[in-house]
Amino acid sequence: MTDGTPAPAPFTAADFAVRLKRAAQAADAADLTGLLLTPGPDLLYLTGYAPVAITERITMLVVPVEGDPTMIVPKLERPDAEASSGASVFGLTDWTDGSDPYHATAGLLGPGRYALSDSAWAMHLLGLQEQLPDTSYVSMTTALPMLRAIKDDDELERLAAAGAAADEAYREILKVRFAGRSETDIGHELAQLLRGFGHSQVDFTVVGSGPNGANPHHEMGDRIIEHGDMVVLDFGGLKHGYGSDTTRTVHVGEPTDEEREVHEIVRRAQQAGFEAVRPGAECQEVDRAARAVIADAGYGEYFIHRVGHGIGLTTHEPPYMVEGERQPMQPGMCFSIEPGIYLPGRFGVRIEDIVTVTADGGRRLNRTPHEMAIVG
Amino acid sequence: MTDGTPAPAPFTAADFAVRLKRAAQAADAADLTGLLLTPGPDLLYLTGYAPVAITERITMLVVPVEGDPTMIVPKLERPDAEASSGASVFGLTDWTDGSDPYHATAGLLGPGRYALSDSAWAMHLLGLQEQLPDTSYVSMTTALPMLRAIKDDDELERLAAAGAAADEAYREILKVRFAGRSETDIGHELAQLLRGFGHSQVDFTVVGSGPNGANPHHEMGDRIIEHGDMVVLDFGGLKHGYGSDTTRTVHVGEPTDEEREVHEIVRRAQQAGFEAVRPGAECQEVDRAARAVIADAGYGEYFIHRVGHGIGLTTHEPPYMVEGERQPMQPGMCFSIEPGIYLPGRFGVRIEDIVTVTADGGRRLNRTPHEMAIVG
Repeated sequence: MTDGTPAPAPFTAADFAVRLKRAAQAADAADLTGLLLTPGPDLLYLTGYAPVAITERITMLVVPVEGDPTMIVPKLERPDAEASSGASVFGLTDWTDGSDPYHATAGLLGPGRYALSDSAWAMHLLGLQEQLPDTSYVSMTTALPMLRAIKDDDELERLAAAGAAADEAYREILKVRFAGRSETDIGHELAQLLRGFGHSQVDFTVVGSGPNGANPHHEMGDRIIEHGDMVVLDFGGLKHGYGSDTTRTVHVGEPTDEEREVHEIVRRAQQAGFEAVRPGAECQEVDRAARAVIADAGYGEYFIHRVGHGIGLTTHEPPYMVEGERQPMQPGMCFSIEPGIYLPGRFGVRIEDIVTVTADGGRRLNRTPHEMAIVG
Repeated sequence: MTDGTPAPAPFTAADFAVRLKRAAQAADAADLTGLLLTPGPDLLYLTGYAPVAITERITMLVVPVEGDPTMIVPKLERPDAEASSGASVFGLTDWTDGSDPYHATAGLLGPGRYALSDSAWAMHLLGLQEQLPDTSYVSMTTALPMLRAIKDDDELERLAAAGAAADEAYREILKVRFAGRSETDIGHELAQLLRGFGHSQVDFTVVGSGPNGANPHHEMGDRIIEHGDMVVLDFGGLKHGYGSDTTRTVHVGEPTDEEREVHEIVRRAQQAGFEAVRPGAECQEVDRAARAVIADAGYGEYFIHRVGHGIGLTTHEPPYMVEGERQPMQPGMCFSIEPGIYLPGRFGVRIEDIVTVTADGGRRLNRTPHEMAIVG
């Protein structure tokens, strides 16, 4: 089993230049002085640069509304930054161990209000706040939640390829024996399948069997899967740099009437969430539509998380599909729709597809059936 | 090849209770109101808890100087937190998707001044600053750099085991053929050796051959290693939860006189750094001692980074062995001593051991020779 699809052409300095310009315009429209990007998905999106590791040494790209972007890096990482594919689109400066990196970084900022990458280290923010007491900061998700939310065609192609690979992995895992094997064993096989279908990175392989399925963040453990178990399979990672994230709930042997009923409620909730996707509607409408199905069926208290999250260069990012998120959906946005019912000590059911907003509704990037598969 | 050593007994709730009490006392002595710990090494050290993933959903342990520690977690992760080995030593509360997590978290804080985990997300700090404008924050490394720095006997045992495993991996890699193989190929073999000798996680395998060795943060690439190359090997990860980090520089075939000389200067610098280790001396003395050897030999401008960093639950942590760090060394502290000379476009040399401070000096946790090994 190999992944036969060719890798898409990498993003170029020209792509990064367009994104940087659009980001500066968005910052201007949001009354910001500029953007401060630290290593992670924001920086990767705008420059293609990802240092070998995210450490205590500050790296920061300053994108002012007026003027040219400049990145400051630790001196020993300068060669890597110079060699990155987007290096021509930003100026570069460095700081040396033993000097004060916040003093050096503050020199690139003016007074004003900056949006900062969500996952920037608090230590770095505190260092800047001390240097520049009159400059203020706001998180990227608060100020510019849409920075990376609307995917262009090249990004959609990658997300679709990641989703198709996850679908292939799911089809294969249905053929294996579940009864008598540990969750970890199945999880490792699922991870291997994802890699076989072209994932360079596996972020999670949840195998929640029987009562473990009722813990939505249980990953996998030593429990031996038994005949009669409901099993939640939630798996994803990165292929060609973009994310997959899919959940299906399968059953070992024939389910009971109650298990069938709960699964069917979740299936209908997922469908209702999907049907709520349309440009202009608020993100929270997707959560509400799915939640209403579960609440109406009497299981509202057992659906204990938001219905979804954005996906792109990471498997969790804005927009979050949650009550209170009034951001309107726009074509090109991609997110999960993943309602679930969790019956403590008994079993759980979750069904998740990645969906992209189109001109007149939504399109699923996962295509495997939602019906409860019976495994051996 | 298997790792025959038994795993040490896991840390218990009693261990965590002792650490929490000591942390609260240290916070009091530093005039703090309390500590705020987010997922990562600080939280792992004090409670044994590590969520499946570090995400945009806030998890925070509040350790007040007076009163009992309380952790707030996303509701869907509560079962994992309840099942963690240290769960009996802290109170637990949760927040639900769709509610304001910063309002809920702020309810656990009083007015005052808190030390916050270095790598806490800036988004979370900004959320708390908005809720509690009169409360102030300082990074853990600024306020309590010694929180995890002094290792007890159980931790030292783990660090020694990790170092011994890295030594074994190095001895094995010396037996393989280098010439004609890619850096990536050698790097993957080194990673496999680390795993074979009991590492559960490999954090980095730098293979910097020829001119790539002159970039201290080059990891590895497609370059084919040639006869006559100097090759920097810097590798490490976690075994039984504690870190290894070792560098040796080897040569493919016979070195030139200049290569021998540069290697010998670095060897002497590393030795000088080691000899500067003693309780009561400032951390910066280790940097100065190693740097003086390199500067005196005329290569000062080519040693472009600090001489070392602490190691424990992570492979990079305080104390940093750098000019300006006046923290006194204390028995049980563990850190790297890793001077290097980097000649741009030509080659690099670095030699690194992990060292622990003893009652009267230092003890190396790596024992393989520093002499330049000749490989094939």
